Amino acid sequence: MAVMEISIIPIGTASTSLSQWVAHCVRILEERGVKYELTSMGTQIEGQLEELMEIAKRMHEQPFLRGAKRVLTIIKIDDRRDKPLSLESKRQSVREKLNRKA
Amino acid sequence: MAVMEISIIPIGTASTSLSQWVAHCVRILEERGVKYELTSMGTQIEGQLEELMEIAKRMHEQPFLRGAKRVLTIIKIDDRRDKPLSLESKRQSVREKLNRKA
Amino acid sequence: MAVMEISIIPIGTASTSLSQWVAHCVRILEERGVKYELTSMGTQIEGQLEELMEIAKRMHEQPFLRGAKRVLTIIKIDDRRDKPLSLESKRQSVREKLNRKA
Amino acid sequence: MAVMEISIIPIGTASTSLSQWVAHCVRILEERGVKYELTSMGTQIEGQLEELMEIAKRMHEQPFLRGAKRVLTIIKIDDRRDKPLSLESKRQSVREKLNRKA
Repeated sequence: MAVMEISIIPIGTASTSLSQWVAHCVRILEERGVKYELTSMGTQIEGQLEELMEIAKRMHEQPFLRGAKRVLTIIKIDDRRDKPLSLESKRQSVREKLNRKA
Repeated sequence: MAVMEISIIPIGTASTSLSQWVAHCVRILEERGVKYELTSMGTQIEGQLEELMEIAKRMHEQPFLRGAKRVLTIIKIDDRRDKPLSLESKRQSVREKLNRKA
Repeated sequence: MAVMEISIIPIGTASTSLSQWVAHCVRILEERGVKYELTSMGTQIEGQLEELMEIAKRMHEQPFLRGAKRVLTIIKIDDRRDKPLSLESKRQSVREKLNRKA
Repeated sequence: MAVMEISIIPIGTASTSLSQWVAHCVRILEERGVKYELTSMGTQIEGQLEELMEIAKRMHEQPFLRGAKRVLTIIKIDDRRDKPLSLESKRQSVREKLNRKA
């Protein structure tokens, strides 16, 4: 399992608001039933690498289907193969260290 | 107000675990009392640009203080000046669009 | 045509040097014969979206084949469909504006 | 010395072209006389961390001075303290490994 963060930014839209574009991309995740978290700076998804790349491609295509002429997509993939990785386990691991020091 | 996402990655640490390094960086945020959210792929912070850049610098320095010899830091800043921006308002805005379409 | 920048960072390698890991990833590009540029902060590749995603997947897998246990991959895709886009045209476009103002 | 890559993306500009915005940001680097390289996916700059952060702040502010209402800035900082780091040395190091294997 890997965790991916993806931000889709349409360029040259007249409006400074991006939330409707993001919503259309997030729809794809709901339809597929993958585990994801919407954050303030990108959508984070857990899954197999192959599936994550397929999802990234579909999310990136989404704004073009709705009229965008240029899209900038930023992806971070964290892929760990020595132990299971999940959205929750990554956060939990930091929280434990924080508490231990407090 | 702007929102920043920051990921601090020490390079050449023997271990695949990064959570203790992240915890030390997050400590800085708790001490300063800034508003932040720990996500699975980075820490997201809201504040004035000047303060965010100052925080980024301190977080980036943190692993060196603990023995790291190389640090890769990734920062995304979303800065909007036509209306107030916050960690919560950004997520809320997408959620509203999602619900409207549902 | 789109342009992609990709950085592959193995985590938990004992050494602070990453260049040998990068070289193995770049090898993939030479073998495929795609157009790419090696920069100081990532490798930039031009091609069709589908091909770029396929390349990203292979480059990301490369360090695992050589013993890495965790890999962080950062990808930026700039995809413009209102006019041709290439590594050279993007730089050239900025240079022209710079000269005009000089 | 560290190396920084920075991309400045104004959001909500009516045009899909970004090169004029980039050119204004690059101007700042020419005026300061720092060492930089314009790439297809961002501007790469070498310098002391303190100076790089100061430059990032000024580049990020630039589009607002020219009417942008929202700016997304993406920064990668590679900071190595066990040996000198420069734009040229980073590329050179990968090239040597590539040639050795060829």
